[in-house]
Amino acid sequence: MKIYHYQFKGKKYYGILKEENLYPIEGSIFRSFKIRNDYIPISEVKLLPPVKPSKIICVGLNYRTHTLESKKRVPEEPLLFLKPPTSIIGPNEIIVYPKMSKRIDYEGEVAVVIKKKAYQIKDEKEAFSYILGYTCFNDVTARDIQQREGHNTRAKSFDTFAPIGPCIATDLDPLNLKIKTFLNGKLRQSGNTKNLVFSIPYLVKFISHIMTLLPGDIISTGTPSGVGPMSPGDRIDIQIEGIGTLSNTVMKIH
Amino acid sequence: MKIYHYQFKGKKYYGILKEENLYPIEGSIFRSFKIRNDYIPISEVKLLPPVKPSKIICVGLNYRTHTLESKKRVPEEPLLFLKPPTSIIGPNEIIVYPKMSKRIDYEGEVAVVIKKKAYQIKDEKEAFSYILGYTCFNDVTARDIQQREGHNTRAKSFDTFAPIGPCIATDLDPLNLKIKTFLNGKLRQSGNTKNLVFSIPYLVKFISHIMTLLPGDIISTGTPSGVGPMSPGDRIDIQIEGIGTLSNTVMKIH
Repeated sequence: MKIYHYQFKGKKYYGILKEENLYPIEGSIFRSFKIRNDYIPISEVKLLPPVKPSKIICVGLNYRTHTLESKKRVPEEPLLFLKPPTSIIGPNEIIVYPKMSKRIDYEGEVAVVIKKKAYQIKDEKEAFSYILGYTCFNDVTARDIQQREGHNTRAKSFDTFAPIGPCIATDLDPLNLKIKTFLNGKLRQSGNTKNLVFSIPYLVKFISHIMTLLPGDIISTGTPSGVGPMSPGDRIDIQIEGIGTLSNTVMKIH
Repeated sequence: MKIYHYQFKGKKYYGILKEENLYPIEGSIFRSFKIRNDYIPISEVKLLPPVKPSKIICVGLNYRTHTLESKKRVPEEPLLFLKPPTSIIGPNEIIVYPKMSKRIDYEGEVAVVIKKKAYQIKDEKEAFSYILGYTCFNDVTARDIQQREGHNTRAKSFDTFAPIGPCIATDLDPLNLKIKTFLNGKLRQSGNTKNLVFSIPYLVKFISHIMTLLPGDIISTGTPSGVGPMSPGDRIDIQIEGIGTLSNTVMKIH
C-alpha cells in the first residue's frame, strides 16, 4: 500500500494510491482508517511531505562504500545525528542553496516511518511491528561546513535540507530495498539496504534504547557511495524500488 | 515576570508568579494574555517543563574555561547540536541513568526561549525581540559515549537528558546572567553569560540563518567549566540569578 499526503482545492488529505488515482482515507494512518470511494487523479494534487516528524534521526557512514569514499572508518556502533523538523520539504519543492555554504551535496537514503511509540524494543524481530513503512529521503549536506567543523548538525540542518516522499510504502522488505539517485537524469548513486552496516530492524531497536520513538518519527538509514555536489538549477531524483521517486530542484533565492 | 507551566488538580495552566503565588493566565504566553485573580500557592502545584519545543539547539564549547578543561579549541563559529524533544523533563523529575553509559555528566546552561518565528534576522539588536525569556537547562551528557564517538548527538539525546525550568523569566539582561551548578548542595560550576564566546543575541541571529526558529524553541548556550559526573541518588541544582533553581535527581531504573 502507498500512503500519500496531499493538498487538493486548498484542503489536506491522506490517501491511498490505486493505479493513478488517490482514494482519501478517514481515520489515522498510524492506527486504523477506512478508504473512501471518491478518488481523484494523482496528477491533479499537490503532494505534501508524507509525515510531520517530531524528530528526524539520521545514521552516518552506514554503507561501507560511502564510508570508504569519505575516508572514514566504519563505526562500531550506529553514528546518529538529528535534523530539525524545519528542514523538511515535500516532493517537487525547492532545496534552497544557503548563503553560508559553497558546496551542498545530495545523499539519497531509505527512510523508515515509525508507526507507534517505541521504547526499549527487546529484539530486532519485534522492531518490524513499530514500522509503518518506508520513503525516500535526501539528507542534503553542506559539505564544506561538515568538513570544516568535523560535525554534522549545522551542515545538515538548513531549512529545506530534508526532502522526503513521495509516499509511505507499507509492504516492503527493509532488508532488500534498491535505491538510486539521479542528478539531472544521470545515475549517481546505486545501493541496496542489504548492504547496510546496521540493518533497519537493528537501527529501530538500537535507537529505541536511546530515545522514545513516536508515530511519524523518521529514521534515515544512511547513504551509499556516489555523493556529490548540486548546483542551482539542478534536479535531484531519489528512486526506491516499490516506493517511487522523490524529485526536487536546487535554487539560490538571494 | 516569571512564567510557570504547572499542573493543579489534574489540569495544566500557565501562570505568573507574584510572591509565592501563581496567577493563571488566559491567552498565549507567546502573544498576549490576561492575568486572572484566582491564585494558588506555588507549593501546591506540580511544575511542568515551561515549554514544549519543536527543537532544542545547543551550543558546544561556548565558554573558554570549559573548552580548556575539555582540551578542545575554541570554535571559530558556533558549534551546534540538537537534542530531541523526547529528552525534555521538568523540575524535580528524574534523570534516568541509561544502561548504555557508565558516566553521565551535568552541564548547567542558560537557555533562551524563542517568542516568535525567526528567519534570517538581520542584526543582533533585532534578535532581542525574538526572545520570550530565559530558563535553566541541564545538558546532560553521557561523557563516555561522547568521548568514544567524537560526536554529540547520541551522548546527549537519551530520554530525560534535557531537564528544563523552573520558569521562563522575561526581564533579564542576557549579556550578564550569573549561573551556578550544585551537586548534592556543593558548588561545582559558576559562570556568567558575559563570558560566552558567542553572545545570546549573536547566537539567535546566527541560528536563524540556518533554521527557522519557532515559538517555544530552545537555544541552550553552552556550559562553563566544572562539569563532572553524577551518580544514582545524586541531586543536581542549576541556579540562575533572576530565574530560580532547576532541581533534579538521578536514578537507575533497571
